[in-house]
Amino acid sequence: MWNHTEVTKKLSIKFPIIQAGMAGGITTPELVAAVSNAGGLGMLGAGYMTPEQLESDIQKIIKLTSKPFGVNLFVPENPVVIQEEIERANQLLEPIRQRLGIKKKSHLPQINTSVFDEQIQIVLKYEVPVCSFTFGIPPRETIHQLKKNGIVTIGTATTVKEAIMNEEAGMDMVVVQGSEAGGHRGSFAEPFDDSMIGTMALIPQVADHVSIPIIAAGGIMDGRGVFAALILGAEAVQMGTAFVTCVESGANELHKKAILNGTEEQTVITSAFSGKPARGLKNEFIVKMKEHEDSLPAYPIQNMLTQDIRSEAAKQKKSEWMSLWCGQNPRLSKHLHAAELIEMITNQIEEIINKFHLIKETERLI
Amino acid sequence: MWNHTEVTKKLSIKFPIIQAGMAGGITTPELVAAVSNAGGLGMLGAGYMTPEQLESDIQKIIKLTSKPFGVNLFVPENPVVIQEEIERANQLLEPIRQRLGIKKKSHLPQINTSVFDEQIQIVLKYEVPVCSFTFGIPPRETIHQLKKNGIVTIGTATTVKEAIMNEEAGMDMVVVQGSEAGGHRGSFAEPFDDSMIGTMALIPQVADHVSIPIIAAGGIMDGRGVFAALILGAEAVQMGTAFVTCVESGANELHKKAILNGTEEQTVITSAFSGKPARGLKNEFIVKMKEHEDSLPAYPIQNMLTQDIRSEAAKQKKSEWMSLWCGQNPRLSKHLHAAELIEMITNQIEEIINKFHLIKETERLI
Repeated sequence: MWNHTEVTKKLSIKFPIIQAGMAGGITTPELVAAVSNAGGLGMLGAGYMTPEQLESDIQKIIKLTSKPFGVNLFVPENPVVIQEEIERANQLLEPIRQRLGIKKKSHLPQINTSVFDEQIQIVLKYEVPVCSFTFGIPPRETIHQLKKNGIVTIGTATTVKEAIMNEEAGMDMVVVQGSEAGGHRGSFAEPFDDSMIGTMALIPQVADHVSIPIIAAGGIMDGRGVFAALILGAEAVQMGTAFVTCVESGANELHKKAILNGTEEQTVITSAFSGKPARGLKNEFIVKMKEHEDSLPAYPIQNMLTQDIRSEAAKQKKSEWMSLWCGQNPRLSKHLHAAELIEMITNQIEEIINKFHLIKETERLI
Repeated sequence: MWNHTEVTKKLSIKFPIIQAGMAGGITTPELVAAVSNAGGLGMLGAGYMTPEQLESDIQKIIKLTSKPFGVNLFVPENPVVIQEEIERANQLLEPIRQRLGIKKKSHLPQINTSVFDEQIQIVLKYEVPVCSFTFGIPPRETIHQLKKNGIVTIGTATTVKEAIMNEEAGMDMVVVQGSEAGGHRGSFAEPFDDSMIGTMALIPQVADHVSIPIIAAGGIMDGRGVFAALILGAEAVQMGTAFVTCVESGANELHKKAILNGTEEQTVITSAFSGKPARGLKNEFIVKMKEHEDSLPAYPIQNMLTQDIRSEAAKQKKSEWMSLWCGQNPRLSKHLHAAELIEMITNQIEEIINKFHLIKETERLI
C-alpha cells in the first residue's frame, strides 16, 4: 500500500500528507482539524504566536478533532539590532505607509526569545502529538524533553548537511524542503543561495545520507507530486501552498485569489518583507524594495517593521503591498475544502497506480 | 509496464531514457552508441560542431549501433557585436590567459549562422532518427522538412509558455527542463530568472497544458528520479550529468572527478564562461568573474572569448579555469559504463515497484 509508510505508522495517520505549519494566521484551528480529520496531519503554524494565542488555538483544535495534529515553532534568532539600519529601512517604508495612510511607525517591539520556551511548555502541557521546528535546531534539552513526553519531533532541512545535523540532534523525522517551496524555507546552516536545491535533486541525495524518515516539501501540490516524492525516497510530504487556498485556510482572500490565478514564473525570492529570503508572487512592494534588499535589517526585525504595512494593506485590499507567499506551482492550486483536497490526492494516486498497470499486493492476494 | 510509454513507442527504444546532447566533446560516438545499444536513446551534442565534424561523428555512430539515436542542435542566435564590450571582457580575461601562458587572443571568430542549415542538411542526408533543439525553436520550414522525412523532432522548454510554443510550432515532443539541470538550460522566451522552476513543480504544470509527450530533465540521476518523473507526467527522461561521468563520455577527467566528488550545494549559475547562464561546480574562474557578469558580451561571443582559456586549462589540468558543468545532484553520480548505468536504473525501478508492494499487470495475469 502506498500510504503505509514509516511516517503514517509513527504518527498514526492514514495518509502521508502533512499540512505545513505556516505562520501568520493561515493555519486556523478549522484548517488544522480538517486536515487531521481527513487522515492527514494538520499543523498549527505558531511561529509568531504569543503563548496565549497558542494555548487558545490548541484548545480549539482539540475540540474539533480527536486525531493527531502538530504545532510548528520557529527556533528563535537574536540578531544584532542596528538602529541606523532600522532608520534607513523605515525611511524606505515611509512612502508606502503614507500611501496606506498609516501614522508614523511606533517603537520597535522587543525581540523576546523567552516566548519559545513558553511555547514549548504549552506543547508539553497539552501533549500535542507532533512538534516541528523551522529556522534551526532547538537545544538538545528541548528535543529530549519533548521526546521523553512522547511528542514526535520534526526538524527542517534544505541541504544534505542540514538533514544530517537534524538527525544527529535527535530529531525523529526531518522535513526536506526544495527550492520550489513557497514562503520562508528553513535554511539555517548554509548560505541561502547555496541551499536552493530543487526537490527532485534534494530528496534522493538526503535519503542516501540519513536514516530518519524524510518528509518531502517544495513543489508538491497533488497526487502526482505526493507519489513522486515517495518514489524519490520520502516517507511523507508536507504541503503549504496547496492548503493556503483551501476554504478553511485563514489566508486573506486576495492572497488566495493571487495564487489561484498565478503562473509558475511569477514567484520570486525576496527578503524585503521579513529580512529573510522567502518565495512569493511578485508585486509592487517586492519590485520597489528589490535594490535595497541587501541593506535591510535582519529577520525578524524587518518582519516587525513591515507588519503594519502588511496588515493595513490586507484591510484595504491592496495586494501590491501584501506578502503573497506561494510555491512554484500555483497553476495546480484549487479552492477546495481540505478534505476534498486530500481525497483528490488519494484518487489521483490510485489513478497513477492504474495507469502504470500496477496493482496493490493486497489485490493480488485475493 | 513502466517502460511502455509514448516516447519509447514513438522512438522505438526499450527504456524511456535519453542521454542529453551535451556539446563540447562529451557525447563521443562511443557514448551515443553505448546508450542506444543499451536500450536508451544516445544523442550527439552537435551544437558547436562544424558540418564536417557532425558528418564524421554520425558515420562513426552508425558503425557502432544499428539502434535509433539523435542529434542535438543549437538554434542560432545572432547577438549584436559590441567591440567595446569584447575589449573589456578580453581585459578581464587577460590575467587568466597570462597565468595559463596563453599568447594574446587572436581575432574573434565570425559567427556563422549558416552552419545551422548545413547541420540540418546532414541530419536529413543520414536520416538521423531524432533531432532535438536547444535555445529556441527553429523555423517552421525546418521542422516541417525534418518531420516529412520521418525524423522525430524534439524541442526544449523551461516554462509552461515555452512548452506550449514548442507544441504550436509542431514539435513531436518537448524536453521540459527544471532548474536543477546542469550546463546551459534551454530558456529562450522568458527571462532566465523567471524560468528557474524546479522539476517537481514544472513537469505536472506543463503536463496539464500540452498534449505532446514530455521528456523530463533536471535533477534526474537514477531509478528514483526516472520513475518519479514518469509519475509527474513525463513519458521519458533526459539525463545529462549522469552520463558525463560515464566511461565512454568524452568529458575531461578533471571534470568527471569534480562531479564524482561534488556535493549538492556546490553548483552555481554563471554566465561568465559563455554569456548565457549555466550551472556548474563553483571554481576560481566563476568567483573571479562574478562581479563582471552583467557587463560581459552575449552568448555566443563570450563563449568564443573563453574558448582558449578553457581548452588550455584542460590541457594543463587546471580545473579552476575550466567549465565544470554539473546538475544539482552530483552526490548520485557514478563512474560506470553507460550500459551499467541504464541497467542500474532499470533495477532500481524494479526495486521501487517491489518496495511499494506493487506488481506488474503481466505478473497478475499469470
